[in-house]
Amino acid sequence: MNKINYRISLLVALMGVSISVSAQKKQKPNPQKEAVIASVDNRFEELTDVSDRIWSFEEIAFQETQSAAALSDYAESLGFKVTRGVAGIPTAFVAEYGSGKPIIGILGEFDALPGLSQNTVPYKSPLHEGAPGHGCGHNLFGTASLGAAAAIKDLIEKGEIQGTVRFYGTPAEEKFFGKLWMVREGLFEDVDVVMDWHPAAETKTAVQKGLALVDFQVEFFGQAAHASADPWNGRSTGDALELYTTGINYYREHIKPTVRIHYHIQDAGKVVNVVPDYSRIWVRVRDSSREGLIPVWKRVEAMAEGAAIMANVEYKVSLISGVHEVLVNRTGSAALQKNLESLGPISYTEEEQDFAKKIQEATGKPQIGLVSKIDPMEETAEHSMGGSTDVGDVSWVVPTIRLSATTAPNGTPWHSWAVVASSGMSIGHKGMAYAAKALSMTMVDLFQNPELVENVKAEFKEKKGDYVYKGFVPDGPPPINSNLQD
Amino acid sequence: MNKINYRISLLVALMGVSISVSAQKKQKPNPQKEAVIASVDNRFEELTDVSDRIWSFEEIAFQETQSAAALSDYAESLGFKVTRGVAGIPTAFVAEYGSGKPIIGILGEFDALPGLSQNTVPYKSPLHEGAPGHGCGHNLFGTASLGAAAAIKDLIEKGEIQGTVRFYGTPAEEKFFGKLWMVREGLFEDVDVVMDWHPAAETKTAVQKGLALVDFQVEFFGQAAHASADPWNGRSTGDALELYTTGINYYREHIKPTVRIHYHIQDAGKVVNVVPDYSRIWVRVRDSSREGLIPVWKRVEAMAEGAAIMANVEYKVSLISGVHEVLVNRTGSAALQKNLESLGPISYTEEEQDFAKKIQEATGKPQIGLVSKIDPMEETAEHSMGGSTDVGDVSWVVPTIRLSATTAPNGTPWHSWAVVASSGMSIGHKGMAYAAKALSMTMVDLFQNPELVENVKAEFKEKKGDYVYKGFVPDGPPPINSNLQD
Amino acid sequence: MNKINYRISLLVALMGVSISVSAQKKQKPNPQKEAVIASVDNRFEELTDVSDRIWSFEEIAFQETQSAAALSDYAESLGFKVTRGVAGIPTAFVAEYGSGKPIIGILGEFDALPGLSQNTVPYKSPLHEGAPGHGCGHNLFGTASLGAAAAIKDLIEKGEIQGTVRFYGTPAEEKFFGKLWMVREGLFEDVDVVMDWHPAAETKTAVQKGLALVDFQVEFFGQAAHASADPWNGRSTGDALELYTTGINYYREHIKPTVRIHYHIQDAGKVVNVVPDYSRIWVRVRDSSREGLIPVWKRVEAMAEGAAIMANVEYKVSLISGVHEVLVNRTGSAALQKNLESLGPISYTEEEQDFAKKIQEATGKPQIGLVSKIDPMEETAEHSMGGSTDVGDVSWVVPTIRLSATTAPNGTPWHSWAVVASSGMSIGHKGMAYAAKALSMTMVDLFQNPELVENVKAEFKEKKGDYVYKGFVPDGPPPINSNLQD
Amino acid sequence: MNKINYRISLLVALMGVSISVSAQKKQKPNPQKEAVIASVDNRFEELTDVSDRIWSFEEIAFQETQSAAALSDYAESLGFKVTRGVAGIPTAFVAEYGSGKPIIGILGEFDALPGLSQNTVPYKSPLHEGAPGHGCGHNLFGTASLGAAAAIKDLIEKGEIQGTVRFYGTPAEEKFFGKLWMVREGLFEDVDVVMDWHPAAETKTAVQKGLALVDFQVEFFGQAAHASADPWNGRSTGDALELYTTGINYYREHIKPTVRIHYHIQDAGKVVNVVPDYSRIWVRVRDSSREGLIPVWKRVEAMAEGAAIMANVEYKVSLISGVHEVLVNRTGSAALQKNLESLGPISYTEEEQDFAKKIQEATGKPQIGLVSKIDPMEETAEHSMGGSTDVGDVSWVVPTIRLSATTAPNGTPWHSWAVVASSGMSIGHKGMAYAAKALSMTMVDLFQNPELVENVKAEFKEKKGDYVYKGFVPDGPPPINSNLQD
Repeated sequence: MNKINYRISLLVALMGVSISVSAQKKQKPNPQKEAVIASVDNRFEELTDVSDRIWSFEEIAFQETQSAAALSDYAESLGFKVTRGVAGIPTAFVAEYGSGKPIIGILGEFDALPGLSQNTVPYKSPLHEGAPGHGCGHNLFGTASLGAAAAIKDLIEKGEIQGTVRFYGTPAEEKFFGKLWMVREGLFEDVDVVMDWHPAAETKTAVQKGLALVDFQVEFFGQAAHASADPWNGRSTGDALELYTTGINYYREHIKPTVRIHYHIQDAGKVVNVVPDYSRIWVRVRDSSREGLIPVWKRVEAMAEGAAIMANVEYKVSLISGVHEVLVNRTGSAALQKNLESLGPISYTEEEQDFAKKIQEATGKPQIGLVSKIDPMEETAEHSMGGSTDVGDVSWVVPTIRLSATTAPNGTPWHSWAVVASSGMSIGHKGMAYAAKALSMTMVDLFQNPELVENVKAEFKEKKGDYVYKGFVPDGPPPINSNLQD
Repeated sequence: MNKINYRISLLVALMGVSISVSAQKKQKPNPQKEAVIASVDNRFEELTDVSDRIWSFEEIAFQETQSAAALSDYAESLGFKVTRGVAGIPTAFVAEYGSGKPIIGILGEFDALPGLSQNTVPYKSPLHEGAPGHGCGHNLFGTASLGAAAAIKDLIEKGEIQGTVRFYGTPAEEKFFGKLWMVREGLFEDVDVVMDWHPAAETKTAVQKGLALVDFQVEFFGQAAHASADPWNGRSTGDALELYTTGINYYREHIKPTVRIHYHIQDAGKVVNVVPDYSRIWVRVRDSSREGLIPVWKRVEAMAEGAAIMANVEYKVSLISGVHEVLVNRTGSAALQKNLESLGPISYTEEEQDFAKKIQEATGKPQIGLVSKIDPMEETAEHSMGGSTDVGDVSWVVPTIRLSATTAPNGTPWHSWAVVASSGMSIGHKGMAYAAKALSMTMVDLFQNPELVENVKAEFKEKKGDYVYKGFVPDGPPPINSNLQD
Repeated sequence: MNKINYRISLLVALMGVSISVSAQKKQKPNPQKEAVIASVDNRFEELTDVSDRIWSFEEIAFQETQSAAALSDYAESLGFKVTRGVAGIPTAFVAEYGSGKPIIGILGEFDALPGLSQNTVPYKSPLHEGAPGHGCGHNLFGTASLGAAAAIKDLIEKGEIQGTVRFYGTPAEEKFFGKLWMVREGLFEDVDVVMDWHPAAETKTAVQKGLALVDFQVEFFGQAAHASADPWNGRSTGDALELYTTGINYYREHIKPTVRIHYHIQDAGKVVNVVPDYSRIWVRVRDSSREGLIPVWKRVEAMAEGAAIMANVEYKVSLISGVHEVLVNRTGSAALQKNLESLGPISYTEEEQDFAKKIQEATGKPQIGLVSKIDPMEETAEHSMGGSTDVGDVSWVVPTIRLSATTAPNGTPWHSWAVVASSGMSIGHKGMAYAAKALSMTMVDLFQNPELVENVKAEFKEKKGDYVYKGFVPDGPPPINSNLQD
Repeated sequence: MNKINYRISLLVALMGVSISVSAQKKQKPNPQKEAVIASVDNRFEELTDVSDRIWSFEEIAFQETQSAAALSDYAESLGFKVTRGVAGIPTAFVAEYGSGKPIIGILGEFDALPGLSQNTVPYKSPLHEGAPGHGCGHNLFGTASLGAAAAIKDLIEKGEIQGTVRFYGTPAEEKFFGKLWMVREGLFEDVDVVMDWHPAAETKTAVQKGLALVDFQVEFFGQAAHASADPWNGRSTGDALELYTTGINYYREHIKPTVRIHYHIQDAGKVVNVVPDYSRIWVRVRDSSREGLIPVWKRVEAMAEGAAIMANVEYKVSLISGVHEVLVNRTGSAALQKNLESLGPISYTEEEQDFAKKIQEATGKPQIGLVSKIDPMEETAEHSMGGSTDVGDVSWVVPTIRLSATTAPNGTPWHSWAVVASSGMSIGHKGMAYAAKALSMTMVDLFQNPELVENVKAEFKEKKGDYVYKGFVPDGPPPINSNLQD
């Protein structure tokens, strides 16, 4: 049957509740989990300082020099063995502690977004006019993950658990997808399980796939001419570009509901009175899976030839990069879910709730403040909607367990000044600490329970099947100094 | 949360199975149901004759003069009181028998599709070159429904049940949607429940909503000019039309996955060397619900003004007609499902299966023959895909119970010569008789069981809520002699 | 210098006047010219009858069976030797009288235009609703030319001049350009000079080139799909066609001011709910010369591949036909000009002028009536504007002298009902007789004056230069039963 | 008649030759003309120094601070009375000498073009990478005009002629058209005749009109949305912009051959994953006359509303500025022509010709070196092609006489590095001196010959007719700090 049903299966959800409720009851006190919680609490000021510095560095993809240094130096100071500049990326690094199996990894991002600089006030007010800002909360992301790794380090150091904890400093998530080159370099080959989280407007185990995605650019090369005196001697790349986008928009009728295509016209000519001889467009194609994505991607690439023929110009298609959808590991996620339920929601002060409501007012959202309650673990939808992440690629080479933790008011528009504001003050700091605790608690489970690791790996192996992972990444070094303007 | 999950809830489906299996066990012999089955069998030759004549008349929307006469004359000959030419449509009629409550209606369509004329052979071979053909099996549709009504009439006549049975001869389903004007006329106001079926490649209780839909045409009026001598004196409606479709295609990025927009360019100029001064396009917008449809419809209509301004021409938007999605009645459907399970699948001869497989071969489908098994009743999806029907409008003014019955080989492309072939021979005839039985058995339930009628009505009332039905139909008479070319 | 100056050189025009005025003075009585004038007057009723019959036959391109018969039968009755069905065209014929050199040809067209049927009244009123009509006055054209040939025949018959007169019955000028196949057949190879005229709203020697032109069609072949259920399984030829026209419109920026491109969308899908799998467009490209035309033509053809790639469909480009611009012969034209000046303007009755003014009123033109005065011969512009004719192709294989004669009110929109009306009554008849006289007088010059013929040929040879004529005509027979709809 | 003939009237041109040849014979020695020639020669080093400094300043429109200072300071040092910052433009100034009537003005431009920085070598080699350069030779333009004014000043100073000479320092010709605001300010109201020249690849009296032009920008304002998560919540200004350009390209079929429309997409969104909520396009419309321009301009402006409606966004159209075509004064031009013929062509060294040929080789032009011969004065074409200038606006308020003088190799692509190279070395310097001489000689004619001034004014008055000049300039101050990026 070719029909797709869009619905919410309530019964299943209800059953899920009962399972987790009963699981919650079985939870016993676990000294190592109490230890990691204490570790995070003990380092709260240090972590806050690192996070706030990264927040104020406002560094974007592949330019996160100070941010990477803040994290790697801190790791080094805690006793981690740090390898900087991995995978050909100056701002990528690995910080490791312990030895032997299991090897449990944890990912930390730290890049900002262009144009979002903002003060820690609940109304739009740039810290540095026109500068980038942490509109995705990655200052908290990298710091919390390192905080979790440090808590595990404390246990290994004390001999309470055995094995290796490894923190991955992963740059350029917002653009270019730095993890692609780290995966290509084989940096995840010996890892048993990877953990990961993301700042959010809610707290939950993250079990949706996100979307697979590919970025490529099309360049057109033509012949300039005076637009008034002899336009007939020009071969216009502006025409090619516009015909190309027209073709893409006509094609939308013929893509499945799960596919998205968007583009950014980067150069459509430089002056009004010249037929342009160079144009460039950045194209992004997404689908709920790699398999669905590939034929659409190839189709949209192929259109460039058609546009070039129509406008009588030359063209070049270049892969930028792209990500896989996440291979969700529900076995590992269930372990994380228990720890969330054990931790319960984050507590906020009245001032924090007031700040949150002001942000909600300023962004036109219901003024319900911060929400951090722990709902039952969601079903994993066959077809996701929303965004994409390069954690997807990691998840296809090593089982990955993912968390979302509240760092911003409910309903906050992501990638906005409002996230920057929350990420630089106590609301963000609390989410960071919460994430560090939940992640390190789950890592304790993985270190303590070899069967859990086996089950996590078994699910991973079964879901991956015969697929031999190959990243959407061009040959050659990462585009560190690329002139790609986004 | 704004997320849509596309999935199949297996647990719910399995529960559905167990319910219906246990229901099946409870089924006891019912003399009235046996009587209607016998009635249909007794009239099989007459019904086949009516169906085959309609099949050979090959009459399209609002031109079904002979087909309407065949059905209404036959009803009259059986003792029904027939009212012809209702709702301003010469080929619409009502045939009624009995008196008092309940009043149970049944719908019968009988229009053909352009260009599909075909012989009863399993390869493409037109009966009349270029003529219409019954590619949707409506010759069977109208006849089976009348056969069911006649079986009920026999019971009323014998005094075995009380009330009124009413057959609606509903023309122009394939185009214009004749039922809209019949609903507008109030012809369904006193009915308790309506039944309906449709020829198909499978047999099941029909519980999906289909899509709401609206058809409108846009006309552009400009200024002709010699395309070579003075094109600057022309104001081109061809330009307006093309800019309009370009706008529609750009808009596709901004519609929800459940929306469909398609169009048919009907007139984009008549000769190559004249700037056209008249152009016309037929536009269809669909969504899974009326509520979702309306804003998109209004948006696509509004674009016509934009295109007209861009091309400096005048424009006119005219509503053609449109349909609501079906308000599904699961209570009534469950009663029908029991009767299907009681009847079991249709039996086919080896010759019929061979014929079916040849059709499957000719149309590139798996050669698995005819399939008529009775699966458990499906869940009703929140968002349907596929087609639309003007039964939708009936379903918003009176509770409607719907059946699909096998009249063509599994996988047959609908609206194709293959359906015409099957509809004119024993495969179609068997499906027709089967439908007449299942429908009349369920009508027996409705006549015998006032509580069922009440429950059916209660579900209808609850689902309809506050909505005051208003059809997507222009003022004035139906477009009987419209020059709308599709 | 790449600059084009658009201007009217008054001084040159004034010098032209003085030359022709002095030439006029030298004009002596010429008995043969008086004889051909008398011949035309004597046959006026017969010619009028032939013309009016063709007018009432209303036959379009390649379907002019009765019209061709009317002319060829009349020629035969006058003693011409008639060869029918030449060049593979049933309605093409040659009628010849006399023997030996010189051979002077004269062209006669007789096809009507679709949709222009009209009575001989000065307001729009179809003779036969929806039928074709003589909106280009070709009923007069063919008849006057034959009348001129007949007048020459009389002189040959009497032995007053020596040589051969040959009338060419040339069908399908309005579409397909029948003369192309007659030229290809070699029917003009032995001719010394050809004469030709055209009905018009003014009287003058025709010395402008018109435009070279090519017609081709592009067909796209895709994959049908249900526009709502699975549009992603469709490959839309409608999309290809629209992208193709978009490409053409973008290309307009890059064509010279003398180029024209127009198109007629002939098939962009047949119903609203199916992704179309076949589309067809008729494209016409023009320029002021063959040399300018060819690269643009090839460019617009090449675009079809681009559109097909963009929409992922197949395509086919087919040449329909095309014409050369006219190779103007000013030497021969000067001889014709003298005869016009000798004849002077046509006289009209008050009724005719009233009729003309009513037509002008109805078509929004200045009500100045009929204009037939003889202005000095125009300069031949480097780049023409306006229309095209297949006389162009004849003019590249044999020197051609051309006349315009008044048959309709000044300013009448051509190809309109107004021309049909005038062509069926005395206004048209007078123009026809006038043309027959002017043409036969000039033929007398050619027969009497071998030096004139030599000079005409010398100019032809010089202007043609090295060019080896090749018509824009596909291989194979003429498209007599073509399904090309225009 | 609606036909346009594109041709060159040779006879008229030949007559022009004979007139000017005879005029040349009458030329007698004129001591004042010899004096101005000597003045220019005497100041050659100073002028070269000013020109070379402006060349090296590389300052673009409205930012020519140093360039304006170089010219105005030099003028002041010569005794001119200088008024800086006129018409609200910091870099606009007026330098005047003498008193009383006649007042003869002369225009001097000095702005550079972006991205053309170049050394004085015959191959592409930027002086400052990415910096502007004098690709239109305006360093020579301003300096030569001031040199001519200074020569006249010398004569006034000596009492040899009476009246006032006034130099206008006119910035921003390449963009924004600075003279518009100077005209609006009334700075030309009391002037009798204005002179002007332009660097070129040939030497001649400039008697073509150029094109009238208008620049406006269209901004669209929509609603941003995540391009993947909820594109249906976005109202895309990118769509509006693309629909707008599509509309413009369709409109090209319906503009006269003399019209040009070009545009520059300045902002079509900033990142790939956001539906853009702001877009901006710069549109330029040209025609051979103001009258032809206006309706096309208004039409293209009106299209913005259509595009906005189609994309459901808001829009704003803002006039940037625009120029009139030049009102050519042939009486004044004839006086200039005589001086050119008296001066004869510029002499070049072998090295200069070699340099020129290398530039021609590098730019793919015939290697014929520098061409400075004096041809007869051209006819003024009814419809010009090519570029536009804000001298057009001056020419509608005061009679204007214009010169082109050779400063670059024949065939050099204008607005290219090759012009920058020539403008910074001896080839440019020679042209500058030549222009200064020809202009000052013609100014001598105007000062000496009141009848010439009267005749010049009479022609101006007749050609201007009833037209009340109104510049295409928005209300408010000039866009000195505009963020308009071109």
